[in-house]
Amino acid sequence: MTQEIRILGVDPGLRHTGWGIVTTRGNALAFVASGTIHAPLDGELAQRLLAIHRGLSAVVRTHAPDEAAVEQTFVNRDATATLKLGQARGIALLVPAEAGLAVAEYAPNQVKKTIVGAGHAEKQQIRAMVRVLLPRATFDSDDAADALAVAICHAHHRVARVLLKA
Amino acid sequence: MTQEIRILGVDPGLRHTGWGIVTTRGNALAFVASGTIHAPLDGELAQRLLAIHRGLSAVVRTHAPDEAAVEQTFVNRDATATLKLGQARGIALLVPAEAGLAVAEYAPNQVKKTIVGAGHAEKQQIRAMVRVLLPRATFDSDDAADALAVAICHAHHRVARVLLKA
Repeated sequence: MTQEIRILGVDPGLRHTGWGIVTTRGNALAFVASGTIHAPLDGELAQRLLAIHRGLSAVVRTHAPDEAAVEQTFVNRDATATLKLGQARGIALLVPAEAGLAVAEYAPNQVKKTIVGAGHAEKQQIRAMVRVLLPRATFDSDDAADALAVAICHAHHRVARVLLKA
Repeated sequence: MTQEIRILGVDPGLRHTGWGIVTTRGNALAFVASGTIHAPLDGELAQRLLAIHRGLSAVVRTHAPDEAAVEQTFVNRDATATLKLGQARGIALLVPAEAGLAVAEYAPNQVKKTIVGAGHAEKQQIRAMVRVLLPRATFDSDDAADALAVAICHAHHRVARVLLKA
């Protein structure tokens, strides 16, 4: 498999949505770009979701990824937080689907295990391993680093994975 | 206030999303249309959200509402169900915001209290009152009836409510 594939990784959140773009060709990974979309804190919910949609749509237009991967939300005990995260996550899944991309999902533990080799890694360990795997990577937030980790995770798993093309 | 306002009500769900359009002029309510968007059960999550987005976008294009109201998801104890509902709800809030509409949110109990006069009404009571308030209404599902109820609730509350125009 020598074709270069461009992967968008997303770590969604209602306040901060991290995104990262990497390329993979065979076993070679390369950093392209990353960033964080900040939704306005004081707007009505629909406006905040619209800001995420606009930001992520601009990323897809600019970087034209071939495939996308979104971190599966951690389902915690706080139903209100879960609901909020779900709403942001809906947008993160929608935007690449609108562009006709297949969208893979990975649980946080799966991402950590792929990147660090352990399912219970700390944020610092993930950042450190993202720097090792993508030496030229820059990221402006933990969310952007997590998004790059999701993209790397997809690069590792996509070969084995049956991708249902959209 | 004699201007006619066209209201979109939405009852979002990952399987079935109900929608309803009513007009309000002063105290006069009228039914315009309603329906149910069925997302494919077997597709990947992103594709299901895309189906909801497409369906609801077509409704907004066809019926050109002036304002929108979305039912606030019931936050239950099942985090997985809450997350799923959140994802569908994110799309329901996004679509009218994309069209530049203000999007109001109402809790299920608020809708029931406005329509039936009690916060713990049964689905049958809501359907019956929707038929009384909108004699010409037709609906193909409980979700569509709930969406009409949300639209009626917004018609009642919008005058008092400070609407932050998008």
